Amino acid sequence: MATVNKRFVLASRPSGEPTPANFRLEEAPLPALNNGEVLVRHHYLSLDPYMRGRMNEGKSYAQPQPLNAVMIGGTVGEVVESRHPGYKAGDHVVGMGGWQLYSAVSAAQAGVLRKVDTSRVPISAYLGAVGMPGVTAWVGLNKIIEAKEGETIVVSAASGAVGSVVGQLAKARGCRAVGVAGGADKCGYVLKELGFDACIDYKTLDGTDAIAAALQQACPKGIDGHFENVGGAILDAVMRNANAFSRIAMCGMIAGYNGVPIPMAAPQLILTNRMKVQGFIVSEHMPLWPQALAELGERVANGALKFRESVAQGLESAPEAFIGLLKGRNFGKQLVKLI
Amino acid sequence: MATVNKRFVLASRPSGEPTPANFRLEEAPLPALNNGEVLVRHHYLSLDPYMRGRMNEGKSYAQPQPLNAVMIGGTVGEVVESRHPGYKAGDHVVGMGGWQLYSAVSAAQAGVLRKVDTSRVPISAYLGAVGMPGVTAWVGLNKIIEAKEGETIVVSAASGAVGSVVGQLAKARGCRAVGVAGGADKCGYVLKELGFDACIDYKTLDGTDAIAAALQQACPKGIDGHFENVGGAILDAVMRNANAFSRIAMCGMIAGYNGVPIPMAAPQLILTNRMKVQGFIVSEHMPLWPQALAELGERVANGALKFRESVAQGLESAPEAFIGLLKGRNFGKQLVKLI
Repeated sequence: MATVNKRFVLASRPSGEPTPANFRLEEAPLPALNNGEVLVRHHYLSLDPYMRGRMNEGKSYAQPQPLNAVMIGGTVGEVVESRHPGYKAGDHVVGMGGWQLYSAVSAAQAGVLRKVDTSRVPISAYLGAVGMPGVTAWVGLNKIIEAKEGETIVVSAASGAVGSVVGQLAKARGCRAVGVAGGADKCGYVLKELGFDACIDYKTLDGTDAIAAALQQACPKGIDGHFENVGGAILDAVMRNANAFSRIAMCGMIAGYNGVPIPMAAPQLILTNRMKVQGFIVSEHMPLWPQALAELGERVANGALKFRESVAQGLESAPEAFIGLLKGRNFGKQLVKLI
Repeated sequence: MATVNKRFVLASRPSGEPTPANFRLEEAPLPALNNGEVLVRHHYLSLDPYMRGRMNEGKSYAQPQPLNAVMIGGTVGEVVESRHPGYKAGDHVVGMGGWQLYSAVSAAQAGVLRKVDTSRVPISAYLGAVGMPGVTAWVGLNKIIEAKEGETIVVSAASGAVGSVVGQLAKARGCRAVGVAGGADKCGYVLKELGFDACIDYKTLDGTDAIAAALQQACPKGIDGHFENVGGAILDAVMRNANAFSRIAMCGMIAGYNGVPIPMAAPQLILTNRMKVQGFIVSEHMPLWPQALAELGERVANGALKFRESVAQGLESAPEAFIGLLKGRNFGKQLVKLI
């Protein structure tokens, strides 16, 4: 076992797009454990769009990431030392270990560490389809959109960690699933591998009018539910095709993260179509997690729920991988492999 | 009894603001009654912002008003002739008689005509506080916003037929009620007569920043619920002061009716504040009407629920009164007295 921990801290807040200079790599000794703590060696770090929001000082749904502190992030790994009776070396665990190789966790605190079974589900999936992104998809589709059999459900960033689960669950519930993704590769994957009914490549379409026309073709009965991971022109185009009593789950507004909000072009459609537009954060729906994780884990284990990962190698690659994620360069769940 | 009916039909669709030339006054003989019909002489015609939407050809929540047909509108009046056993001459009734002096109504059809008790409630109130506007306020506050004791509720067009009821009901439920209205007279009425806790005169404030700052002062604990009758800068300013888990009931977007949609400046706030923004139409909540009308009628009868009317005299005044309503020239419920 190494005796040195490596970690990235937030060195400065970005104005606009983040750059590698916003992050600083540090070395530190491995923490000595107090009673009740366990030392976790991280196998994978999860990179997620929400992190961009935390890098701002402004009001968001969570406290900003403090300067000079370890960057927040989900991790899976194994216990290498334990001073808590519930954990032993070798246990596989998921937690919020941050952008670093090791973390010392007070395991008695509720919800900070969860043991996971890697016999039927690969450990990395607990950061994706059987983790926070998967549960986000599950909660948005079932509790915000309340998708019903026969309805048409659209999801943006459809090849991503959240969007891919939204569409596959929608299909499993008897819905028509329509994705929006960037590029022919991603759209092909969404259609052929994930089994969506249609996928629109927004990169070939210039502006709201063109996206709206493509959605109209892909959704002949209109749109009943939409899972929004992006915002901007895609959201506007969806609203133009929205049915009466349709529901939009607002999960990500990645297009607006870089400081400039993108207006909603026609909010009066919320009234004329009697729509519900609702934002949600998956961590505020904790009572739903066990049910969601049980379904997602079983679907991954039996091969019904597919997922894809973009894996960057080594902690040092995290800043570039994160910047690429914000630009849509990843394909599937963005991870950093740390071992 | 007169033998001639007078009526306004839609002569042409407006582009932008309606003008008197969009309406045409016609005379026609009184209709002969078929079995099951009653002839109603209208005492009052209701003028409402939704009519502007119906004048457009475009997609709205309802069919457009057909050209050369009698303008749609709510009416109260008395039965002057009946060929239906449930009605007799002299009965006071509320219905959708349109912009005309008389209407022949197939009384057997469910929901088209409702007898009203004018012993404790003035007949005109059945077009306002104890009619569609009052029920709109009731449904939006109780079922969309789900206002709870101690919360802060904002309503735009606060001195109007809907807004005035929203605020008074919010007070009755133990909320802080904050109005937005245009002009010192209206704000004074909202504060002193209707008993709101605060009222913001948007006419003295230049743009979203100024309205947002005034709302911040008036809502020291932030905004938990908002009843939107207007849209535009007021909606944007409310969203900047919205609390986590706040709810916006979208009832009117009068600022956008004249053909040009007004964007929502910062839709990402729906996500960061986990808001629910929901449009609704009161006619789609019919099961709630009896409960709502019972409460509203009792509150008007016992003097707890106050309202104000702008009454234009004579059918001929309807187009100008309607145009004035869209410009906010009315003060309280806009009616046309027809007798």
